Amino acid sequence: MALRDLSARFDCCSINTATLGHREPVEVVAGRVAAAGFSWITPWRREIDEAHPARAAAAIRAAGLRVAAYCRTSPLTSGTAPDWSHALDDNKRALEVAAELGARDLVAVVGGLPAGSRDLEAGRSQILKGLEALMPTIEATGVRIAIEPLHPLYATDRSLLNTLAQALEWCERLDPDDRYLGITVDAYHVWWDPALERSAAAAGPRVRTLHVCDWLRQTRDPLLDRGMMGDGVIDLRRLRGLLEGGGFGGFVEVEIFSRDHWWQQDPDTVLRTCRSRLQEVC
Amino acid sequence: MALRDLSARFDCCSINTATLGHREPVEVVAGRVAAAGFSWITPWRREIDEAHPARAAAAIRAAGLRVAAYCRTSPLTSGTAPDWSHALDDNKRALEVAAELGARDLVAVVGGLPAGSRDLEAGRSQILKGLEALMPTIEATGVRIAIEPLHPLYATDRSLLNTLAQALEWCERLDPDDRYLGITVDAYHVWWDPALERSAAAAGPRVRTLHVCDWLRQTRDPLLDRGMMGDGVIDLRRLRGLLEGGGFGGFVEVEIFSRDHWWQQDPDTVLRTCRSRLQEVC
Repeated sequence: MALRDLSARFDCCSINTATLGHREPVEVVAGRVAAAGFSWITPWRREIDEAHPARAAAAIRAAGLRVAAYCRTSPLTSGTAPDWSHALDDNKRALEVAAELGARDLVAVVGGLPAGSRDLEAGRSQILKGLEALMPTIEATGVRIAIEPLHPLYATDRSLLNTLAQALEWCERLDPDDRYLGITVDAYHVWWDPALERSAAAAGPRVRTLHVCDWLRQTRDPLLDRGMMGDGVIDLRRLRGLLEGGGFGGFVEVEIFSRDHWWQQDPDTVLRTCRSRLQEVC
Repeated sequence: MALRDLSARFDCCSINTATLGHREPVEVVAGRVAAAGFSWITPWRREIDEAHPARAAAAIRAAGLRVAAYCRTSPLTSGTAPDWSHALDDNKRALEVAAELGARDLVAVVGGLPAGSRDLEAGRSQILKGLEALMPTIEATGVRIAIEPLHPLYATDRSLLNTLAQALEWCERLDPDDRYLGITVDAYHVWWDPALERSAAAAGPRVRTLHVCDWLRQTRDPLLDRGMMGDGVIDLRRLRGLLEGGGFGGFVEVEIFSRDHWWQQDPDTVLRTCRSRLQEVC
């Protein structure tokens, strides 16, 4: 199957604001992203005044952009009942704000092992229960929750969802009619997976967004030393091909956590580099 | 199914010499391991004079120990033909030395992405070709190669074998009659895997050794900051139960890479701690 041509269909590409390091207010960032030729943006909650989201929504719209997704949920694996209930309320609010921004999805980082626990299954059950509890709000807002498998490295502290196959299984179990959930696939988290060919083909239609960046061969820190597409070991075009071959037709979104390199560069230079690398290697 | 009782059947437990930090000659280490009540040891190549392995073999025997396995292969994913051929020769030599030591297995860390490559499948094919090329030597020596899936974190630099399911698939493909290969399961590398229940049950009879240590919640370095069993987040008894339920009856071996903590402690204290933790939490 021929891949979508990203240079001709640049309208399917999005910039996640984390790529610019959260250094400027979202209206400034939106202006830069639009000027670089993108049509879509994914902001983070820290950038939005959630008491008055209409202001950010208007600024993003005024820049000529639309909102692809909103980052991101609070973890659904708190150890205590009040914490868990607080996380649920917080995630409901995030869905409402996402709706006001016009976002299609709220990205979910589901949470790692609860404090003091070694029980993976109990933690995973708590997450599934949390996702189910959010479904009425998903229905009311029209914003889906896009669950994102994180690299197994983060199982302890960030996510008990660690492979694409697992994400697909959760979606099929909780949402058989494909109405509430979706999947965010981040190349950084899944590229190594020996089952990827199979799971990407099967998950394709459920995948809402493909996050791209790169795994640097000499990475100093898997959290905050991620690379620009093309600078590392991930065959991004192959991954996109596997997903598109399976029916994926969503966003290709740049999300780069790079504290010591890209977050120190001029934002417009970063965006120009994203644009050319999307065309050359993604 | 009831687990094997490690306190009553302490003869199925082994000490991997990496646990003591390679600080002393293998004959000294063997004496300590025997004095701590263990019957089995797994040495590393750096500790053995491979030109005269009979000396180490005699010293280990004199201490009253037997050799469970030998660590470990050279990577089978070198970029160039001469390098690959050199790795093969080196691994053949390792099998011969392992045989002289009386080891049942040679542990294989199969190698990461070749330099300059993004092609996971090509790297994996090279590994499979290498394992096949070693089969005559396996047959001649009677020492199996026990392939060890490493944490996905190591896909770039150490291993393109990253899950237990993948290890089982390789064994079934290359060695359908179960004569040449086996699997080393290290809890540290596989504990997070959402498919573990399924793959441990299926792989049980192919598993030669279960390596135990622990993943520390606040790990500073996933390579050299591994924890003593019970000090981290891994439910080791559950993992052993999954494997034994699937037919695993091999060694439970302690292997702890802990540069800044356990490798600084008195070796006999480390061994006593291993012994009690094996009984309490493994």
